[in-house]
Amino acid sequence: MKSVLLIGQSNMAGRGFIKDVSPIYNEHINMLRNGRWKMMAEPLNFDRHISGVGPAASFAQAWTVDHPGESIGLIPCAEGGSSIDEWSIDGLLTRHAVSEAKFAMETSEIVGILWHQGESDSYGERYKTYEDKLLSLFKHLREELNTPDIPIIIGELGHYLGKTGFGKSAVEYKQINQILSKVAYDEKNCYFVTSKGLTANPDGIHIDAISQRKFGLRYYEAFSKQKHVVDILDIEHEWIEEEAKRELSKNERIFLQSMKFALGQLSFEEFSTNISSINESE
Amino acid sequence: MKSVLLIGQSNMAGRGFIKDVSPIYNEHINMLRNGRWKMMAEPLNFDRHISGVGPAASFAQAWTVDHPGESIGLIPCAEGGSSIDEWSIDGLLTRHAVSEAKFAMETSEIVGILWHQGESDSYGERYKTYEDKLLSLFKHLREELNTPDIPIIIGELGHYLGKTGFGKSAVEYKQINQILSKVAYDEKNCYFVTSKGLTANPDGIHIDAISQRKFGLRYYEAFSKQKHVVDILDIEHEWIEEEAKRELSKNERIFLQSMKFALGQLSFEEFSTNISSINESE
Repeated sequence: MKSVLLIGQSNMAGRGFIKDVSPIYNEHINMLRNGRWKMMAEPLNFDRHISGVGPAASFAQAWTVDHPGESIGLIPCAEGGSSIDEWSIDGLLTRHAVSEAKFAMETSEIVGILWHQGESDSYGERYKTYEDKLLSLFKHLREELNTPDIPIIIGELGHYLGKTGFGKSAVEYKQINQILSKVAYDEKNCYFVTSKGLTANPDGIHIDAISQRKFGLRYYEAFSKQKHVVDILDIEHEWIEEEAKRELSKNERIFLQSMKFALGQLSFEEFSTNISSINESE
Repeated sequence: MKSVLLIGQSNMAGRGFIKDVSPIYNEHINMLRNGRWKMMAEPLNFDRHISGVGPAASFAQAWTVDHPGESIGLIPCAEGGSSIDEWSIDGLLTRHAVSEAKFAMETSEIVGILWHQGESDSYGERYKTYEDKLLSLFKHLREELNTPDIPIIIGELGHYLGKTGFGKSAVEYKQINQILSKVAYDEKNCYFVTSKGLTANPDGIHIDAISQRKFGLRYYEAFSKQKHVVDILDIEHEWIEEEAKRELSKNERIFLQSMKFALGQLSFEEFSTNISSINESE
């Protein structure tokens, strides 16, 4: 199985409202739990109990379309509110992410790293030292994971920042975006992903759920084509609409029924009947 | 800070329905996330997206009452469906739990281990080899964590097993319970906790939310008094009722408002107004 490491702060973890988008259930997408793989459901990066939709689910969904019959695993290590200093090479977050990645590598091959971070460094001239810190982190991860050439995909900070709500304090997000872009263009196997057109939750800082679905597609475009994505993709809107209509496989339908039952939304009789009818329909 | 390691299978992770009990918000209870401590909210052991209420929250709540001004951290490593063989000393779950515990120990002192497991071994005469495997795990954890004397609290499997739903296949739960009890009584610093009177979700296997609150209190009774708990505690029902009425601290009220806002249940204006009024009320 292939796997992808998710690191950065809250917009990589995901804060889009789950109710705002169609769920993605896909038996070929897994998430790391206790060092093992489980079929994905959102929120998949559970750094907070309020975690929601991030870019990784639609990234993975697009990956599975291009890799029929194969599976992908997501290694969730993003941490809400974390600054670049908290991603120092000897810092807890980095060491923990490396540890989780190594557990994942016992049963998968890491093929990429998705990075989204910088809101917490968008003030107080922190951008002046950001580049060196980011390069140091990437170099360290490549060494520690023994993955010198895997693509690292770098997402731009939202253009809506610096204006309202919690996003108001991110007054220097443009400077951080310049550095994110520079690192992506300068470094080998690093690719930039624009946040053009993405919108925020009412808090003015977190990318909303629909936008996260689009962002994930852009991350996948950069990953799969090994190129910078500097504009909105033509397919975004249509892809999300089509995805919502995708027919679930037998395993996915069983997963969904099991989930409803586990959450107390079905009686045991209803659950049993539904599972029987899924099994008979094959 | 003190901390406690949570291991076992789904009833330690927690599958009680969150809507069935009053939430526990307590600024002195933390959960480990990405190697760091965050204020707890349930589900705290996110092995599955359907995780719910386990025994740890009321355990920790009772702990804070006995330790005013101090804080406790919960290290969630329980894995739904795991058998004792999956908790072998070189198995992934055990190595991952040790790894998480060591991250926690950078900023806390582990003072106990809570164990609940055995449903997955309640058939096929697995009980015949269960004792040696459990003892081997406990010895290994004590050595690896360098905590030779900390209490290990062992919860009994539900008396409702072997009858309905998913619990129907756990036909040998009584044999497993005998061994859990034997280990607790034979081993130094191991204590047994009865599941007497606890009830299940409609699935017949998972302890329901109210019962998990009670179970957590029994775990704490065993932990704090260093004794076996062989009967229902007189205080259980009243404790849960009183807890639901506890007034939240300023930080807890802010946590709750932040959560509602993060989940899209408040506008930014409502959120700001509520936070202001909390701050002014002090």
